[in-house]
Amino acid sequence: MDLRNLSKNDTIIACATSPGMGAIAVIRISGPDSIEIVNKNFKSFIKNKSLLQAASHTANYGEIFDNLKKDNLAVDEVLATLFHHGKSFTGEETVEISCHGSTYVVKAIIDLFLKQGVRLADPGEFTMRAYRNGKFDLAQAEAVADLIHSSNAAGANIALNQMRGGFSNKIEDVREELIKFASLMELELDFGEEDVEFADRTQFIALINKIQELITQLIQSFELGNVIKNGVPVAIVGEPNVGKSTLLNTLLNDDRAIVSDIAGTTRDVIEDNINIQGIDFRFIDTAGIRETTDYVEGKGIEKTFQKIESSKVVLHLLEASQVKNSSSTLLAEIHQKEYAKYTGKKIVFVINKCDLSSFSEFENMGKSGNEAYEVIAISAKENSGVEQLIEKLTSSFKIGEISPDDIIITNARHVQALTETQTNLNNTLQAMETGIPGDLLAIDIRAALYSLGTITGHVTTDDLLGFIFSKFCIGK
Amino acid sequence: MDLRNLSKNDTIIACATSPGMGAIAVIRISGPDSIEIVNKNFKSFIKNKSLLQAASHTANYGEIFDNLKKDNLAVDEVLATLFHHGKSFTGEETVEISCHGSTYVVKAIIDLFLKQGVRLADPGEFTMRAYRNGKFDLAQAEAVADLIHSSNAAGANIALNQMRGGFSNKIEDVREELIKFASLMELELDFGEEDVEFADRTQFIALINKIQELITQLIQSFELGNVIKNGVPVAIVGEPNVGKSTLLNTLLNDDRAIVSDIAGTTRDVIEDNINIQGIDFRFIDTAGIRETTDYVEGKGIEKTFQKIESSKVVLHLLEASQVKNSSSTLLAEIHQKEYAKYTGKKIVFVINKCDLSSFSEFENMGKSGNEAYEVIAISAKENSGVEQLIEKLTSSFKIGEISPDDIIITNARHVQALTETQTNLNNTLQAMETGIPGDLLAIDIRAALYSLGTITGHVTTDDLLGFIFSKFCIGK
Repeated sequence: MDLRNLSKNDTIIACATSPGMGAIAVIRISGPDSIEIVNKNFKSFIKNKSLLQAASHTANYGEIFDNLKKDNLAVDEVLATLFHHGKSFTGEETVEISCHGSTYVVKAIIDLFLKQGVRLADPGEFTMRAYRNGKFDLAQAEAVADLIHSSNAAGANIALNQMRGGFSNKIEDVREELIKFASLMELELDFGEEDVEFADRTQFIALINKIQELITQLIQSFELGNVIKNGVPVAIVGEPNVGKSTLLNTLLNDDRAIVSDIAGTTRDVIEDNINIQGIDFRFIDTAGIRETTDYVEGKGIEKTFQKIESSKVVLHLLEASQVKNSSSTLLAEIHQKEYAKYTGKKIVFVINKCDLSSFSEFENMGKSGNEAYEVIAISAKENSGVEQLIEKLTSSFKIGEISPDDIIITNARHVQALTETQTNLNNTLQAMETGIPGDLLAIDIRAALYSLGTITGHVTTDDLLGFIFSKFCIGK
Repeated sequence: MDLRNLSKNDTIIACATSPGMGAIAVIRISGPDSIEIVNKNFKSFIKNKSLLQAASHTANYGEIFDNLKKDNLAVDEVLATLFHHGKSFTGEETVEISCHGSTYVVKAIIDLFLKQGVRLADPGEFTMRAYRNGKFDLAQAEAVADLIHSSNAAGANIALNQMRGGFSNKIEDVREELIKFASLMELELDFGEEDVEFADRTQFIALINKIQELITQLIQSFELGNVIKNGVPVAIVGEPNVGKSTLLNTLLNDDRAIVSDIAGTTRDVIEDNINIQGIDFRFIDTAGIRETTDYVEGKGIEKTFQKIESSKVVLHLLEASQVKNSSSTLLAEIHQKEYAKYTGKKIVFVINKCDLSSFSEFENMGKSGNEAYEVIAISAKENSGVEQLIEKLTSSFKIGEISPDDIIITNARHVQALTETQTNLNNTLQAMETGIPGDLLAIDIRAALYSLGTITGHVTTDDLLGFIFSKFCIGK
């Protein structure tokens, strides 16, 4: 958003609902003159009723007209819901106009108010005002955007929890404890030459260790948080005939059955993108490595490897007959040659076109003590073993085991701030070990407090605010 | 919509705002159990406050949770606005849940209520219920859909006027006068053999003539109504080098400047579709006829003619030099050869690449007494004469002169019903002229009453209702 608007206190307007045609649309107006300006252009269907006398949180039925025009012609019939100062999302006086959901009508109403001194809101400006008015801290405000962008249950739950202060409270608790110590340290400095020690060093070291443990936990949670927020890229490696697309369709059909009963959700189902148990798996089609090495030139192979590299899971599809006719160490050989160089990647060999009788035979191939890869036998066509494959996919990302109170980091900015805090606290510990004087120690503690403070916005800059709220959609 | 749902009285749900991500979304629940069902899954942020005690038209802040799940985990923080029985859009008890505008959150909340016996609303079902509960007649209900689909001021005004009963009142006035006469006629029939005449035939003929005049006016208004609602197709005929695309860009740029200040409107601007003074002009690119006859085979020429045929205006672009070097009757020749066969189509010769000094010379070519076509000189590159071209385009469709109270028909169904009424009334007149007996006359009058009644829905069938409401979007 425009940095010049960060401290403005004028009245702003934007459409708060998704753009495009709908039964209704909601236009949000926030700022000191909201109710008065709307009232000037609003005629209640209840005689002599003015919005100025209406209570907060009431929906008032009437028509919007342009009071600058002589004809007093109604632009639309609307519901104007009022929120008095201090009782709205932004903390300011707010009116939400619920009108007919025509793009023309929405534009006409917004235009009408723009001509009367209301300003078009920047993206995120309503939430920025909520933050500025103390309705949210920064981490909570960021969670509003995450909630709006959430595409699955786990993501929505984490965002909601963060919006309601779960994460912020944890950070604030830590910060307060640190501040207590820092104050004692500053007190020591005040006494200067007298060589007193108000801040118990042993206690302080214990505190820092406790905080470091929590921070490490939080940083580690980002791996899962990122998976929940951004999905899991899965590379499917396999020659065209091994049944890749049959497998994909089997998975997709299951998913479609789940979403098909709600109109409007279908368009979010992108081919090759499957939400299983709350996790978005993004299947990335690749050319088979083995085949590629045979006849495709360097560029093609490189591309396949890039796709494998950017994935979290590799499903390597093979045909049952192919495996049967090869040496018993085929899988180990492929793994050694193609995948041993990757660490932290889940490699699953999927043996397709198995008949049911030989499932266990194939799956035993993975039990030879080699834990770097797993083997699963399926028949995509018969829909056998697919459930077990899904189980293998999801087992690494145990969404089901997240408790609603668990704090999961989903925001790279928070990870960065936490990592900086970690460094600053390590510096503090080292400084104490080397018996550094209190005034220098205080600098490290202040740095740690600063980096922690950027998370909730106790410490902030206009640039940071501009950056964060620019990522919001208009109307929020 | 599903005809089986026409008379159902259960509780229905749908997202009422445009699908897709937005700051907020509104979910509408209507039916006898709405408030009770929402209340079971709603925890107010005001202690001990229940929706059951809340007043109509109040927005209540709280969280939605799934009361069938043990964890009582919040799905979202929402505003639940209540509308009591008889005080809502549908006339039924209604709750509008304003939640965060994530497609996931919307789906999660709808799913939650579907599991508790609420049914997903058919398209138009909310408006159908408003109609069934006497909040709207049929013509008014149809106007709701027109208003939502409106893309310009004139269209929105006509729809709003119709939604508020402007058109219906006119039809109802006529219908009542007819009914009065029909009753007298039926009374005559009751007296059977006594040969009395309660219904004054001269007065009746005068009434029918008055009604026919009004109906003719209404039917004629459809041409303008259709233009306002569906736009004006303009075929641009001209060889590639005559400056067709420069002209289009000049027109489009003007238009873009108008819409660019509102986010979300840009995506409605389709290349070649320009709203000028409230009218959508759809420019249809065609190959030039003259060039086409030279070298393109039959199919191509046929296609160009089809495009010209479906247009209301033809802009035939020519180059100034081309016109200067030809005979003075060039335009008349082209017109005679290509356009004389079309009636009711506006043909404008646009002479491009003129230098300013020769403008009047070219334009005089159109003043040779031939009124079947107009000539305008422009320089698209210099943006000269373009304003005059726009004036020529819009002058045939005088939106500016429509008064807010004018009744303009925009719905083909209404035209059909009016045309049937016209026929039935003509039959009545003819019957009277031939001195037909009262009982046969009554049949014609009843037929006229029937066709008029289908407009407002005083006379209706399930099929008609199903047809009308199917054209609505979900959530309305």
